[in-house]
Formats: sequence, C-alpha cells, structure tokens
Amino acid sequence: MSYFDTVASVDHALASLPSPDGAATAAAAARQAALTKPDGSLGRLEEIALFMAGWQGRERPRADRIDITVFAGNHGVAARGVSAYPVEVTAQMVANFRAGGAAINALAGACGANLSVVALDLDRPTGDICVEPAMSEAECLAALNAGAEVVSPEADLLIVGEMGIGNTTPAAALCLQSLGGADWAGRGTGIDADGLSRKAQAVEQAVALHAPACVSPFETLRRLGGREIAAMAGAILAARMRRVPVLLDGFICCAAIAPFAAAVPAITDHCLAAHCSNEAAHARLLNHLRLRPLLSLDMRLGEASGAAVAAQILRSALAAHNAMATFAEAAVAGIVAEAP
Amino acid sequence: MSYFDTVASVDHALASLPSPDGAATAAAAARQAALTKPDGSLGRLEEIALFMAGWQGRERPRADRIDITVFAGNHGVAARGVSAYPVEVTAQMVANFRAGGAAINALAGACGANLSVVALDLDRPTGDICVEPAMSEAECLAALNAGAEVVSPEADLLIVGEMGIGNTTPAAALCLQSLGGADWAGRGTGIDADGLSRKAQAVEQAVALHAPACVSPFETLRRLGGREIAAMAGAILAARMRRVPVLLDGFICCAAIAPFAAAVPAITDHCLAAHCSNEAAHARLLNHLRLRPLLSLDMRLGEASGAAVAAQILRSALAAHNAMATFAEAAVAGIVAEAP
Repeated sequence: MSYFDTVASVDHALASLPSPDGAATAAAAARQAALTKPDGSLGRLEEIALFMAGWQGRERPRADRIDITVFAGNHGVAARGVSAYPVEVTAQMVANFRAGGAAINALAGACGANLSVVALDLDRPTGDICVEPAMSEAECLAALNAGAEVVSPEADLLIVGEMGIGNTTPAAALCLQSLGGADWAGRGTGIDADGLSRKAQAVEQAVALHAPACVSPFETLRRLGGREIAAMAGAILAARMRRVPVLLDGFICCAAIAPFAAAVPAITDHCLAAHCSNEAAHARLLNHLRLRPLLSLDMRLGEASGAAVAAQILRSALAAHNAMATFAEAAVAGIVAEAP
Repeated sequence: MSYFDTVASVDHALASLPSPDGAATAAAAARQAALTKPDGSLGRLEEIALFMAGWQGRERPRADRIDITVFAGNHGVAARGVSAYPVEVTAQMVANFRAGGAAINALAGACGANLSVVALDLDRPTGDICVEPAMSEAECLAALNAGAEVVSPEADLLIVGEMGIGNTTPAAALCLQSLGGADWAGRGTGIDADGLSRKAQAVEQAVALHAPACVSPFETLRRLGGREIAAMAGAILAARMRRVPVLLDGFICCAAIAPFAAAVPAITDHCLAAHCSNEAAHARLLNHLRLRPLLSLDMRLGEASGAAVAAQILRSALAAHNAMATFAEAAVAGIVAEAP
C-alpha cells in the first residue's frame, strides 16, 4: 500500500501533524545550560541541537545517518523558453549524479551522507501549466508516494533536492498561488532578461488559469507543480509523520511545501532552512515559511547542494552538544556578576 | 632564532607581504567554469576554492591538514570587573581544552582538524592597560614568536583562537586605537550593563593614556593588547610569510590584526573571515578589515569555535572544486540563450 493512497490521505496527514518530544527538548536544553561555555554562546548551534533532540526524541540527537534524495522531473512549460538550459540537461544531469560527477555527489561525500537519485518519468514531461494541469490526480499521488517512499524512520536527518530544467517556473507559480504577492519568478540557473520576462508571463498565465480550481493544497500541487516538486512535498510530509527532521534546500524545495504551509503553517516545524539562495524570491519565501536560513552563501544550484553544505553545520552543532564536558565534569567556575 | 627577533622584523614582514599565485588562481577559475553546474552557481564555495588555490599555489587546493591553535593569556585589566567570569576560568578552560571537554575540542574533531593549546604565562597577567603598557618589548616579541612558532608550512589552513578572561577589553582598545570611531566595547561572554559601562570606561582610559605612544603597529599591540592577542597576530603574519591561508575566528582574533591592518590593509588578503559573531562591534571590524564573513550563527564563544565551524564549509567548497566532473567529462549540454 502506498503512503498517500487517496487525495484524502494527504489532507488527513496535514490535519494530524505530530509535534516534537517536549521532554527531549527540555533535557537537551538543560544539557546545553550545563556545558562549559557561557549560556547561549554557541548561538544557532544550540538551537539546532534542541531542534534535533525534539524530533528524534533524544537528549543527545545523532547525525549518523543523513539521507539525501534528489528527485528529477521534466516540465511541459520548459518549451516556452523559461530556462537557460535545454531540457535534455535533466537526463544528462541524472546520469552525472549516477556517475558521481555532480556537485551533490561531492557535497554529500563531504558531509558523509547517503545519496540516492529518483528520476520521475523524464521522457514524459508534465503538462504545460499555462494551458493544462501539470499532472492528473493519479500522477500527482504517484509523485507524492515516490517521495514518501524514500523516507526511512531510521534516518537521523532527511534532505531532499531536485533537478528539472524549467522548474523554477512551476515553483514560482506555486508561491504565487499559495502565498499571493508578485514577482516570484527569478533568474533560476541564469536566464537572461528576455527569458525572465517569458517566465514571469508563464507564471501569471498559469495561475490565472488554475486559481479558481486550486481549492486544496493537493490541487495546487497537481495543477501548478511538477513530479520532482510533488515528490519533495510527499517526502517532507511523510518525514513529519515519521518524526524525521528535514533540512530544506533552496527555492524549489521550499516552494514545494508552500501549498501545504499556506493551509497548515505548522508543516515547517520539523524543518530547518539550510540556506538562503541567490534566487531573488527565496528570502521572501523563507519568511512566509517562518524559517531563518542557516547559511547565505550566494548559492543557486539546487540538487540539494545548499542543504548538503548546511548538514556540515548540523554535524558541528551535534558534536558540540554531545561531546562537550559540563561545568561540573570539568571543574570550571560559572558566571559571576560582581563589581570589582 | 625566533621569527620576530626584533621590533624591526615585524615592520619588515609587514613591508614585504607575499601575494597569492595568480596562475594557480586562474587555473582554478578555469576549472570552476568547466564544472557541471551553471557558472557561479556555487556562490561563495567557488570564491573559497579560488582563494585557497591562490595561497596554496595549486589548481586543486587541499584541506588535508587543518591546524587550530588556541592561545591563552591573562589580563591585568580583568581586575576592573570587565568580564562576567572570574580570571581563574582562563586556566580552568585551558585544562578543559587539554582534557578534551571544551567546544573547540568537539568542533575541531567535527572538522577533522589538529588542535593545539598554548598557554602564555597565565600566572603572570599583563599590565593593566588603563595605567601601564600590557607588555614590555621583550614580552610582546615573545608572544608574537609563540604565535609564529605554531605555523607549519605543511598546513593547508591555519586557524587561531583565544581564551583569556577579560580579553574583549584589550581587543576593543586595539580597535579604537587602530580604527577610530567609538563603542568598540560589547557584552563579551555576557557581562551585565554595569560591567559594560566599566569596560567602555576602561577602553577609553587605556587609549587616552597610550595613544600618543602608539606610533607603530607593534607599539599599539604591545601597549593595548595581550599575550594571546599578540600570539594570534604573530601567527597570522607568519602564516602570510609562509603563504598559509588563515580562517579568522571572532572579534578578538580579528582585533588582533587591527593594528597591522590599519597600517597595511593587504595583511588580510590571505585571510577568510569565518563568521560574524554576536559581539556587537564584530560586523564593523570585519568591514574595516575588508572581509565578508562566511557564517552568521549568533556565536560568541571564542576558542576558535566559529572558525572550526566554518572550516566545514571550506571542506565542502574544496570537495566540490576537486571532485566534480567537467561538462566535457560528463557529456552535459551547456547554456543556451535562445528564444523558443
């Protein structure tokens, strides 16, 4: 049986999101306060340790197993010239991932993660969202399940990423439909001014067409998304149900859960934002998701690359949390507040 | 023979700073442009790779050997109640470093670095800078040399850090004297409002006393600095002479080279700024040093902790630079700029 066997199962999951383990968070906070450093002096490293403790339900959370999955899909809308690259590049890059030659291969290696790649019907692009829904109900459920299937309850951390020429266009459409505003289309992998103009036009046209029918997060995802985008959304939702913390990657990864977040803001509670990318709208999207990025390194590659870099920070955070001595163990004097 | 055997040897070093290897930088840039990603899409990771290539003189720079040294010193000015902690904590934390229980032990382990600790006459605090120079000429030269001695030309990257109760006060004094402005004193490890007021007063009093005699970077460092601060300055300068790139830690580490930077701005060319800490004046100091921090994680611990976290980013940057396939190797199509 699939994780999401009906459209109703998606709504059901969103209506029954589990919370972190408060006792584990409190125990981790007590440990942090006892470690040989001024309280709070490790800043966001302390915040990461508490976050991981809560979702793993352990005072001393682990990062022994970090799973990264990159989902790939092709997009009908790419035929409108919304990307700097030809659509063949999606399949070529999947081959590159499998051969070990892409950025995510090197970056997954550097952070000691397991990398898997799931190519979703690359020879069958989604419908052109400017004139039709991206996917049928069955196709969208299949994509959500392709995501859910990669989530192991044994993982200490899940990272999902994407490859799909043209996919900043559906991502921008998901943001516009879910969050309102304007100017969600950006330069993506580096399109020129004319391409950006075509892209913004495609986003507006798609949302104008589908908005009346976007009556649920699922419908929004199905009509305006894409297979790799729905797969990321499915993986992130399934991770929540299994209490596996998630490190979100860039604009497209974050846009994948914008439909969910617009309906149920707490969906991001088990997520850390790895980074703020150079895609112009990413910072605004992170604000909507109520997430503060760990890194801001001018990256704009996708492939889970930003999350794989941020996983290094998470490793450092847990190393400090788990391995440091307490004031009592090290016989170090605590804070004083006396005048001389 | 010591590295800095006379005061003149410091000036001589500052007057003859080597430059990076432009051919290696260019070769690394050409490699980056050929890797299977949109040009520039790895953002600051690409910048790090080029920086390391230039200073190591290699198209494919390494991070096999990362050396971290934490220098510790005590400060006469601490008796004025300028810290949240008692001075005994300096020696207690040195013992904690040696026992492996401090944050830097865990963080050095996480990034695979070699950690060493150099305690500098902890039972003999420096002079109280409010009424006398921190060090004699001989003492300051000895501290500079203690720093220079830890720099191995075999290191791929050097990180220096510090432990010294009260040392944000001399650090703020070095900034005020070297860079002008005001409000260089901050909360340090977490002092209260009264303590901050005493600290700001001490900084002003010290600079008012010594300013007329601060006629060289060495004199500024000797009068207003401290042993661990001069040791960091010596290490960073010696690293430059040996073309070893440096990852700078927090406010005190950066303040250590403020006297050098005020005289010779190019001193920071072989340095990356690991992070911007929560010490209020650190962001401004980094601007003066013409450095853009890699991280901003609300840390404020010292001990080289921020640099040890940023070393993880550097590892990721070099992993991508060295291990990725080129477009030609992977048979991936390049950028197109056509309309549909």
